[in-house]
Amino acid sequence: MSLTNARAQAPVPSDQAAREEELVERVVRSFDQCENPRLKELMVGLVRHVHDYIREVRLTEEEWRQAIGFLTRAGHITDDKRQEFILLSDVLGASMQTVAVNNAAYGDATEATVFGPFFVEDSPEVALGGDISFGAAGEPCWVEGTVTDTDGRPIRGALIEVWEADEDGMYDVQYGDERTAARAHLVTDADGSYRFWAITPTPYPIPHDGPVGQMLEAVGRSPMRPSHLHFMVSQLHYRALVTHIFVRGDELLGSDAVFGVKDSLVKDFQQQPAGTPTPDGRVIEGTWSRTRFDIVLAPSGV
Amino acid sequence: MSLTNARAQAPVPSDQAAREEELVERVVRSFDQCENPRLKELMVGLVRHVHDYIREVRLTEEEWRQAIGFLTRAGHITDDKRQEFILLSDVLGASMQTVAVNNAAYGDATEATVFGPFFVEDSPEVALGGDISFGAAGEPCWVEGTVTDTDGRPIRGALIEVWEADEDGMYDVQYGDERTAARAHLVTDADGSYRFWAITPTPYPIPHDGPVGQMLEAVGRSPMRPSHLHFMVSQLHYRALVTHIFVRGDELLGSDAVFGVKDSLVKDFQQQPAGTPTPDGRVIEGTWSRTRFDIVLAPSGV
Repeated sequence: MSLTNARAQAPVPSDQAAREEELVERVVRSFDQCENPRLKELMVGLVRHVHDYIREVRLTEEEWRQAIGFLTRAGHITDDKRQEFILLSDVLGASMQTVAVNNAAYGDATEATVFGPFFVEDSPEVALGGDISFGAAGEPCWVEGTVTDTDGRPIRGALIEVWEADEDGMYDVQYGDERTAARAHLVTDADGSYRFWAITPTPYPIPHDGPVGQMLEAVGRSPMRPSHLHFMVSQLHYRALVTHIFVRGDELLGSDAVFGVKDSLVKDFQQQPAGTPTPDGRVIEGTWSRTRFDIVLAPSGV
Repeated sequence: MSLTNARAQAPVPSDQAAREEELVERVVRSFDQCENPRLKELMVGLVRHVHDYIREVRLTEEEWRQAIGFLTRAGHITDDKRQEFILLSDVLGASMQTVAVNNAAYGDATEATVFGPFFVEDSPEVALGGDISFGAAGEPCWVEGTVTDTDGRPIRGALIEVWEADEDGMYDVQYGDERTAARAHLVTDADGSYRFWAITPTPYPIPHDGPVGQMLEAVGRSPMRPSHLHFMVSQLHYRALVTHIFVRGDELLGSDAVFGVKDSLVKDFQQQPAGTPTPDGRVIEGTWSRTRFDIVLAPSGV
């Protein structure tokens, strides 16, 4: 890494460096008895990076205390509805790097992106063409597409989980009551097609009233995410896909707080004037939008 | 780092590596607007190491979830009496490396070691020769020595904080009540000398009923620490010293769970037969021990 701090740039005398290195090796050796080779590899790699980091930046004891305090505050704000450690991983790009490492490109398979902290198990099921909003406020949005394999063959019975924030940028789990809204699952048709009503995605900040938000403010970064709609698509024999689609033209596409944007995931959301007939005959007073997302699943094990 | 896992050893195709590297640089650039150069250095260094780690070990999404779960459990067990993040830092040697980086050898100045999670502010003061045990169970131990500078000049009025576990390996903050015991502070005499009664240190495990203990068990490491007595010594114009002394002959000296042992800090604790007169005329029924710890402070700013 490049060092720009005067303290860190000062050369470390060789006897001091030797003491520091001896400590690293002593810690590494403490894992010699670990019987699980993968766990050992993970721990030894972690130790080497943590020690290299402390030595490279010449971490001060006060900075170490601040780091402990940060983790403590993150732990205390985390509960079953708020996950500050996932936010931390997200804003450091660690979540997205884990996605990248585990989802190598395969043919024209749809790209993956971050899972985020707002998925909830046991979402309600909707029929094809149903409405996932369950009363969440926002402009209606018709979403349709197909799920196919990389040879273009339709995948029937694929499970699609979708979830999104409402027009105020809030997920249901942030409402503070027990409502379920703007999330559901549905299953593809015999021809691999799917369709549902959602709400037009809008930009929102990641939760920034905690330590991660304070960190972003201290470094001059915005907590905003560009508008998006989450998908998780799975079917036996295929690599599970966790992704979102983004709204073309959103000015935040270049500055996603969690680095989730990929060009292939930016889609046209076409706003329809009030009175435009809907695909399924639903009567809508105001404007609505529509988009298409054709999903391609890679085989499992690639 | 050396890789021993088949998955991690598989070569990464260059287009995949390029995508991973592009993400790292995108995350690094997000800190471009940070106005605090030290904070920027710390964050960019952290990002590079976190991403290098994920890429080197080819972290799986399940392993990422386990890491998030580990941090969450560590956060939830942490309160004002229990600090799992300090324990984590300690067992990874990160605390000791931070001590090493910030306490370069200077003349014959006493070496520093880990602070640990059991220091408490506002300990009671005892007079020279007083008893810091406050009823904590254990064999009485007479501790004496001097505080001098690296030229051998006595340092008067140095503040000495001392704390230790009782004979059951428990610190007062682990008793579950509000008692203060086996901790106190005192001040050196005009000739730089000090003396107090404590209890003979005994080995104990770091708190291992939480996620850090589970991790140690999974990797085949012991949570035990060799017997020791904590000191924090400070005086204006001198580098504050956080250290312990260890008991010569303790069979755990070579396997301290937190890597705190340094040869220079291992001291003779001489057990005295029952009936041996004490230095201050105190009458003790059974055995007692004595040790000497001459403390040398480095000037501040070195």
